[in-house]
Amino acid sequence: FQQSIIVCTTLTISWTYDPCCSFPCQHQSVCTSPDMISYQCDCTGTGYYGDECQHPYLSTRIKKWIKPSKSTTHYILTHFKWVWTIVNNVSWLRKTLMKAVLAMRVSSVTEPSPYRGLSSYPSWSAYINDTMYVRTLPPVPTNCPTPMGVKGKPELPEISVLLEKFFKRRTFQPCPQRTSVLFPFFAQHFTHMFFKTDPMKGMPYQWGDQLVDLSQIYGHGEKRQHELRSHVNGKLKVSLVDGHEFPPLSNQTTANMSNINLLPQEYQFVFGHQGFSLMPTFLIWSTIWLREHNRICDLIKEENPAWDDERIFQTARLVLTGETIKVVIEDYVQHLSGFHYKLLYDPELVQGGSHSFHNQIHVEFQLLYHWHALMPDQIEFNGKSYTMKRLLFNPEPVVKGGLKRTIEDLSNQWAGQVAGGKTQGAATLHVAGLAIKNGRDLRMQSFNAYKEKFEMKKYTTFQELTGEEEMAAELQKLYGDIDAVEYYIGIMLEKRRSPQLFGETLTEMGSPYSLKGLYSNPINHKDWWKPSTFGGQKIMDVIKNTNLQSLICRTVEGCPHASFTVPDGATYRLPSDKQDVENDRTSAILIERARNADANKYMWTQDAKPNSIPDKEL
Amino acid sequence: FQQSIIVCTTLTISWTYDPCCSFPCQHQSVCTSPDMISYQCDCTGTGYYGDECQHPYLSTRIKKWIKPSKSTTHYILTHFKWVWTIVNNVSWLRKTLMKAVLAMRVSSVTEPSPYRGLSSYPSWSAYINDTMYVRTLPPVPTNCPTPMGVKGKPELPEISVLLEKFFKRRTFQPCPQRTSVLFPFFAQHFTHMFFKTDPMKGMPYQWGDQLVDLSQIYGHGEKRQHELRSHVNGKLKVSLVDGHEFPPLSNQTTANMSNINLLPQEYQFVFGHQGFSLMPTFLIWSTIWLREHNRICDLIKEENPAWDDERIFQTARLVLTGETIKVVIEDYVQHLSGFHYKLLYDPELVQGGSHSFHNQIHVEFQLLYHWHALMPDQIEFNGKSYTMKRLLFNPEPVVKGGLKRTIEDLSNQWAGQVAGGKTQGAATLHVAGLAIKNGRDLRMQSFNAYKEKFEMKKYTTFQELTGEEEMAAELQKLYGDIDAVEYYIGIMLEKRRSPQLFGETLTEMGSPYSLKGLYSNPINHKDWWKPSTFGGQKIMDVIKNTNLQSLICRTVEGCPHASFTVPDGATYRLPSDKQDVENDRTSAILIERARNADANKYMWTQDAKPNSIPDKEL
Repeated sequence: FQQSIIVCTTLTISWTYDPCCSFPCQHQSVCTSPDMISYQCDCTGTGYYGDECQHPYLSTRIKKWIKPSKSTTHYILTHFKWVWTIVNNVSWLRKTLMKAVLAMRVSSVTEPSPYRGLSSYPSWSAYINDTMYVRTLPPVPTNCPTPMGVKGKPELPEISVLLEKFFKRRTFQPCPQRTSVLFPFFAQHFTHMFFKTDPMKGMPYQWGDQLVDLSQIYGHGEKRQHELRSHVNGKLKVSLVDGHEFPPLSNQTTANMSNINLLPQEYQFVFGHQGFSLMPTFLIWSTIWLREHNRICDLIKEENPAWDDERIFQTARLVLTGETIKVVIEDYVQHLSGFHYKLLYDPELVQGGSHSFHNQIHVEFQLLYHWHALMPDQIEFNGKSYTMKRLLFNPEPVVKGGLKRTIEDLSNQWAGQVAGGKTQGAATLHVAGLAIKNGRDLRMQSFNAYKEKFEMKKYTTFQELTGEEEMAAELQKLYGDIDAVEYYIGIMLEKRRSPQLFGETLTEMGSPYSLKGLYSNPINHKDWWKPSTFGGQKIMDVIKNTNLQSLICRTVEGCPHASFTVPDGATYRLPSDKQDVENDRTSAILIERARNADANKYMWTQDAKPNSIPDKEL
Repeated sequence: FQQSIIVCTTLTISWTYDPCCSFPCQHQSVCTSPDMISYQCDCTGTGYYGDECQHPYLSTRIKKWIKPSKSTTHYILTHFKWVWTIVNNVSWLRKTLMKAVLAMRVSSVTEPSPYRGLSSYPSWSAYINDTMYVRTLPPVPTNCPTPMGVKGKPELPEISVLLEKFFKRRTFQPCPQRTSVLFPFFAQHFTHMFFKTDPMKGMPYQWGDQLVDLSQIYGHGEKRQHELRSHVNGKLKVSLVDGHEFPPLSNQTTANMSNINLLPQEYQFVFGHQGFSLMPTFLIWSTIWLREHNRICDLIKEENPAWDDERIFQTARLVLTGETIKVVIEDYVQHLSGFHYKLLYDPELVQGGSHSFHNQIHVEFQLLYHWHALMPDQIEFNGKSYTMKRLLFNPEPVVKGGLKRTIEDLSNQWAGQVAGGKTQGAATLHVAGLAIKNGRDLRMQSFNAYKEKFEMKKYTTFQELTGEEEMAAELQKLYGDIDAVEYYIGIMLEKRRSPQLFGETLTEMGSPYSLKGLYSNPINHKDWWKPSTFGGQKIMDVIKNTNLQSLICRTVEGCPHASFTVPDGATYRLPSDKQDVENDRTSAILIERARNADANKYMWTQDAKPNSIPDKEL
């Protein structure tokens, strides 16, 4: 008798699941199930009504009718060059447009997000507990029939199969947007200030302040900052190589670095970020910003001879924050956008009303920012070619070649194609695997759910997604339903949208997160953005006139040409000779040593959290 | 020869000071001195130009001409009752006006503030280092000729003299606004969630999250929260006294309380805030909110039978946050305002644009919130009179009398007059002394500087400030210059502005800080403020319909009358009989014991920070 009851119960469980699994609530309304039998759709603020928020109000109809689609906007911004030449040269037109861009983009990011980590509903913890990233869409409910809710197959494809079929690079293809490798290395250095995934606990745990705080230069927390400061005239510590300034060596500071013992002593540079020993490319950008910091300190001191070390340091840090945002918006994001319209950094655009000067990192942003496919199979430094692995824990190429030659080399070499599948180099293929796994651990909603959230047309066929037949057919076989395709898979395999690097979704989602983060910096507040904050008008003008090339010119000897776009005639090199294989073998030993190093699981896909940073309260 | 140089240098120093000491920059422009000889005024955003930002632009002239003065606005809001009856009853009019009030008030608080702690310039630390309160005006530069810059005497009056002459209460005067003692005890309980001055380091150090987070109920941090939770159906732990719910006793939880050993075991209640053993008045409001939390949990469970403990708890916490804000704006601030216009809590008012859902506590706000003069010399509980000291560490009057009788008692007793001087009861006189000292340690600018900052007319005479002759003459003698009167002195001695409790400045400054804090809560964000966040429409309606009386009715047996205003015929009692003296002697011993208790300097003017809360990184 007792046994039969057990059977009954089991049967019931196997047929009951959270009715929100089927995502019945339309138009971004919130689904809750009070009793696991029925569901309620909360239509507040959606502009729709009805049991499933399916009926638009008249005002919603009109708005939808007026609002141009994402693809129309994109078409306009990337065509009609002569119109844009005019707009770019008429200050108020350029400003007005940027204001519109910001209003549209920033408003699509909810801050503070009601969802944090794996939580599926608003709570005080979601607001206050910053040991985790937030998220844009709540997770798929637990115990649904399929990983994406009710759509697709009960099991997701094996990650190794996905990597092999859709991610692994067959032949290197140069980036059709002519991106140079200077670009991904800028990205790598820049993003490590706000993507600080906890290396022990993994996603969604993190240990940063989730905004453009330049912690990759100044260190996270005041203790590390002071370890890196010279405490004289605001400057940071430096070491000298052939008379040129480089970051300080490990014997000059108590600040720790992950795996620094893997490097020869003369190359043991110390950075704001604990994990930057890994690649010499961190050394490049760290050195540029370090030199710029100390140069700005001189300027501030010149303008304000009575100011003390502390005030010069703090002021220079704010100046560098402004310069970073300027270069990121007007050079870096500009390159990404492919727009004829020239994007603008002008804090006055967010100084009306009560704009929020706070930021949060969304797991969706972290995952879409996996652009490792940009890495070619090898890179040339100073006439010598290095595979990716050979560069690990190896600052020699940069130090020996010097910054001038390095910047020239990187500006002249092609980055790889990202969008469209089969673009991940062997050295970073595991990173894509980890991203897929993260998405599953986070129970992320489907790629199409995100297309809808960011007001794009959902795909109805796999062919529409990839823009070709072969991968589409394979995906169809593996996922069964276009609504069951995983977030990261869709982001990476979506067909490229010309003239950009990525597919439509990556750009349409990345742009709001990015602009929100850049424009939400406190220096943009009207009571901060003024000459006195930066040590005077002359120095504020430095921020306003900074761009990639001018930054390089004033920090690198000989003012080398620097560009995120390769020049005409630039070539790229395919892996071939035996030396590469030999080098790979050497560096494999290094990696193995790094992997096994005590309390340091640090890989270049992850961030190092030193033991000295206290765990925040959970 | 060398000696003569030293003499020269010394002479120079004694005559040189920061030129910003004289506050030469007008209209809130920023003064910086690059060389300690000259100064620069940064006019950005002030609407003025010129070396000292003294000349208004035409647009500024027009704006100034159109904008009604603070006193005109106040006059309108507190007169023409029949007009306001109409406004209050026409929903869109009431809303429109509240929107205008918010736009005006909230915009006058800079968030994030460029100034934190003792720092006088914007810095990344000012933004990120939340171990300190922020401030509205930067400190007076160091090494100025006088404590207020260049105005006034080189030494400030002795604090003991100020207390004796201007603060010490001679005879108890009832609050002219008919405030009941229920009001200050509500304030006392409410404000301890965001005024969390570090009890060891003192001002400006603090250990809270600087906003309406209900940490006085749920504890600061997740560890304490869990110690207070029953982990069944979302509810908090309770103890039972005569069948009524009270907070849990110390043997029911591991959460620690400061000085709890001073209480008999049966009264060792444990609260969200570690310092709440001090006064039985904390017990009153803690018990009310505790009962409300558990009641709301029942409602949520009823509406959502499938929800687990965690979701019910988190949801109930958000509901209580909404109820708190509702009562604070519509009952508490309403009482303070004296307006005929009925203030409104409606989150939709801040849901357009990108309002900031973040808050910071300004030292100015903390200092002006010292309303201890509201305390009468003794309070009657259940027919028995208690001096303030006799109430310390003594929950018996509340527990024995029961909540019903207590609420009735407190609603019927007069609070004391605050404004106008000589209003501080003996038991809290030292609090005023500490506030004056804090202001000096913080090198706060003068009272008149704050009047100007908040767009009020500066006082030109002492008579204008106090509205009488006697104190004015004494102040004149002690300070010499009206522009040298200290912030806290001005705030407290300013003549009362009828029909309010306080002087013009306290209200005009307190209101923006307060409304910013209340309306910046994340629950007001459009993606949070919806029925699903609170467990359904029925429960959201509970928030919308909550007021002081309804809150009391549903949590206190027998629904006692509760009011922040005393009824006609209420009396008050002057200290007289011997019993008071006797009792004082007993409690003096208790206080002494508390003072000497290890690692607990806790007094009712300060907040307890338990040893278990880790020091944040400095």
